[in-house]
Amino acid sequence: MNPRLEAIPPSMIRQLNSRKRPGDIDLGLGEPLLKPDAALLAEAAAWAADSGCRYGPNAGLAEVREAIAGHCAYPGLDAADNVCVTAGSQEAIFLAIKTLCDPGRDEILVVEPAYPLYRKIAQMEGVASRGAGMSASSGFAFDAAAILEAVRPETRLLVLCSPCNPTGRMIGAAALQQLAAGLLALPDPPYVLLDEAYRELHYQAGPPPALAALYPKTLIAGSLSKSNALTGLRLGWLLAPRDVIGPAIKVHQFVLTSANALGQHIALCLIKRGQVGAHRAHYFGRKEAFCRALAAHGIPHIEPEGAFYTMVGLPGAWSARSVEAAMRLVDEYGVVTIPGAAFGDSAQGWLRASFVAEPQDLAEGAARLAAFFAGRAGIRTAETLTGHKL
Amino acid sequence: MNPRLEAIPPSMIRQLNSRKRPGDIDLGLGEPLLKPDAALLAEAAAWAADSGCRYGPNAGLAEVREAIAGHCAYPGLDAADNVCVTAGSQEAIFLAIKTLCDPGRDEILVVEPAYPLYRKIAQMEGVASRGAGMSASSGFAFDAAAILEAVRPETRLLVLCSPCNPTGRMIGAAALQQLAAGLLALPDPPYVLLDEAYRELHYQAGPPPALAALYPKTLIAGSLSKSNALTGLRLGWLLAPRDVIGPAIKVHQFVLTSANALGQHIALCLIKRGQVGAHRAHYFGRKEAFCRALAAHGIPHIEPEGAFYTMVGLPGAWSARSVEAAMRLVDEYGVVTIPGAAFGDSAQGWLRASFVAEPQDLAEGAARLAAFFAGRAGIRTAETLTGHKL
Repeated sequence: MNPRLEAIPPSMIRQLNSRKRPGDIDLGLGEPLLKPDAALLAEAAAWAADSGCRYGPNAGLAEVREAIAGHCAYPGLDAADNVCVTAGSQEAIFLAIKTLCDPGRDEILVVEPAYPLYRKIAQMEGVASRGAGMSASSGFAFDAAAILEAVRPETRLLVLCSPCNPTGRMIGAAALQQLAAGLLALPDPPYVLLDEAYRELHYQAGPPPALAALYPKTLIAGSLSKSNALTGLRLGWLLAPRDVIGPAIKVHQFVLTSANALGQHIALCLIKRGQVGAHRAHYFGRKEAFCRALAAHGIPHIEPEGAFYTMVGLPGAWSARSVEAAMRLVDEYGVVTIPGAAFGDSAQGWLRASFVAEPQDLAEGAARLAAFFAGRAGIRTAETLTGHKL
Repeated sequence: MNPRLEAIPPSMIRQLNSRKRPGDIDLGLGEPLLKPDAALLAEAAAWAADSGCRYGPNAGLAEVREAIAGHCAYPGLDAADNVCVTAGSQEAIFLAIKTLCDPGRDEILVVEPAYPLYRKIAQMEGVASRGAGMSASSGFAFDAAAILEAVRPETRLLVLCSPCNPTGRMIGAAALQQLAAGLLALPDPPYVLLDEAYRELHYQAGPPPALAALYPKTLIAGSLSKSNALTGLRLGWLLAPRDVIGPAIKVHQFVLTSANALGQHIALCLIKRGQVGAHRAHYFGRKEAFCRALAAHGIPHIEPEGAFYTMVGLPGAWSARSVEAAMRLVDEYGVVTIPGAAFGDSAQGWLRASFVAEPQDLAEGAARLAAFFAGRAGIRTAETLTGHKL
C-alpha cells in the first residue's frame, strides 16, 4: 500500500460530524443549504439530450474556458488557454500542488488558519508543507510581513484562501501589494495559489483586488459550489500561467479525463447570465443575523468580510483545547462547530462556526454556545449520554 | 515543476486526431455517438432541483454504492462498502494505482495491447511499469501462462482490460481460472485491476465470468461512459476489497471530494431500471457490419468478442511502422485509425479501428483501408497535401 496515505491523519471535521444527533444545531456545515436553480438544471439536461454527453476536450469545452476566463478577468490569466475546467476547486488545488512541486525537494507554505486539505494533499504527494499562522490577536487578518518572513528558498508554492475558510477574512489591497512586492524581490519567487472558492461571497462594496495584476506567478482555484449552491455539481476551475496550465491539464487528463459536461454547461449559462454572485445578499443577511446573536450573548468572534464562516473565541480555560470544547459542545449542548485546531496551530482556542443554517437555528446555536461559555448545563448532561464518550 | 510530468510523452492518439479534416472517416473514435436518454437526464435535473445538489459522502451516496455493488454482483465485492463512486473509470484506475503502489519500490504489470494511460499514470506517480504482450499470432487472446511468466516479485498490481480496448478480446473462463490459480500460488500474490469499462458490451451469450469469485485480491474499474453513451457524465466506480477501498476513498476525497450528484442519480436510475446494457445490440449490429465489410475487402482483423474496436493487421511492409501507416491513412486516404504502437510493442504492425460510426461510414472506411492496403492512390495524394507533413 502507498505508505504516504497511511500516514495522513483522519479528518477532525468528519469525527465531529459523526457525533451529531437529530435535533442538533449544525454550525459545522461547509456547504450551502439553498436549492439550485431548477430551470438551469433542466436546461443543462435538455442540452445534453440534444447534443450528446460527450467527453469534450480534456481542459474543458472551448466556450466554457473562455467564459470562465472572461468572468474572472484577471490580467495575465484572462485567455481561454489559461483555464482548466476541473471537478470543483478541490481538484484545482490538487492539480496546482501536483504540477508545481517536485516531491522530496519542494515545499508548500500555507497561510493558516486554513482548510486542512492543502497540507494533506501535499503529504499525499510526498511534498513537505509548513504553515504561516496569522495572529489571533489581530483577528487572523492577512499579514503580508508575517507571510513573507515564513517563505524559504524551498518554498515552491504559497497557498492562501480569500475570502477565507475558516476565518471569513479577506486579503486587502495593501496586503496584496506588500505581498507581491516582497515575493518579487526574492531570488526565485514562489508561485501563489489563491483559493477563491468563496470569491463571490464578499460583504464589501467591490470585488476583491486581483493578485494576478500584481504578481505574474499567480494561480487561481475557483468553483460554482459555494456561490451557487452546487457543491454536488463538482464544477470548478484552475487558472494558471501558460507554462503551468499545460502540465496541469496533463495531470487532469490522467486523473479523470475531463470535467462533467452537464456541469460545464451549467457554468456557461450562469456566467452568461451574470448569476454567479446571485446568492451574495442571502449570506450577507445570515452573517448579520448570526453576528448580532453572538454579540448579544457577548461571544467574541471575527466579523466576516466574506465566505460563510466566523471564528468564535473560546474562553481562556479552553484556549489550548478546541477539540475537547467542540466535542463537548456537540455531545452536551447539541451544537456542532469545528475546532480551530483542525485549521492549524494559530487557531487553537477558537471554533469555526458557519452561518448557512436557518435564522432560527443560528439564534439557537448562539444561545447554546453562550450556555457553554457561561458554564451553564447543556441540553444533555454527561449522565444522559449513551454511546458518546468524551 | 514536477519532473515526472515533463517526462511523459505526448499522446499518439491526440496527434492522429489533430490531423483529421472535414469529410474524413473517423475509425479512431473511442466513445459512443449515440444520444443519451433525454427523460433520464431530465429526471436527474428535477431530482437535484428538488433535493439540492449537495456534496454527499466522499465515497458516493449510500444507495448508489449499494446499487453498483448489486449490479456488478461480484463475490467479495458485493457490499456498498466495497464501492467508491468515481469520476469515470479513469479515476478508478488512477485510485487503484495510487493507492496500492509504493512509489520507487512497486511496479505495475500491464497486459498489452492496452490503453496507454495505465502506464502513463504509473509514470506520473513514480511507479515503474512493464507490459506483458499478448501475441498477435493468436489474435491477442489473453494468455494466462504468458501473463504469469511476466509477473515478478515487485509486481504489486496487474492490470488487464476485458472486454479489451484496443483488441476487442475478452478473457474467458479457462484463462481466468489459470490466471487466478497461478497468482494464488505466488508467495506474495499481486492485486489485479480488471478494467471493465466495456463490461456491458460483450457479444456472447452470457456475462463475462467473475475474476473476483476466483481471486480475492481483485479490483474492478467500471463506468456508464461506454455502455450508456455518457462519457461526458464522468460517472464510474472502483470496487475493491475492504482494506483497499478505505485508502482509495481518501485519495478520491483529496483529489475531488466526491463524484458529481447528477451522475450519481443517473447511475441509480439506470441500474434500478436494468438499462445499463441497453446499447449492446446496437454495437453488435455495427460490429457485424464492419467485420463483414473488412472481410469483403480481404482485410485481416480480429473478430471482436466485446467493446467497440477491432484490430486490423497491416501488410508486411508496414509491420514495424504502424504510426507511419496511420499518419498516411489520415493524410492521404482520409481515414483515422490509431496505430497499434500506441498500445504497446506487441501491437506494432496493427491498427485499432472502432465501429461506433454510422454504417455507411464504416463501409467507406473499410474501402479506404482496402485502397491503402492494395497500394492504390488515396483520395488526397501527397502533392495535394498542404500543411500536413509525414
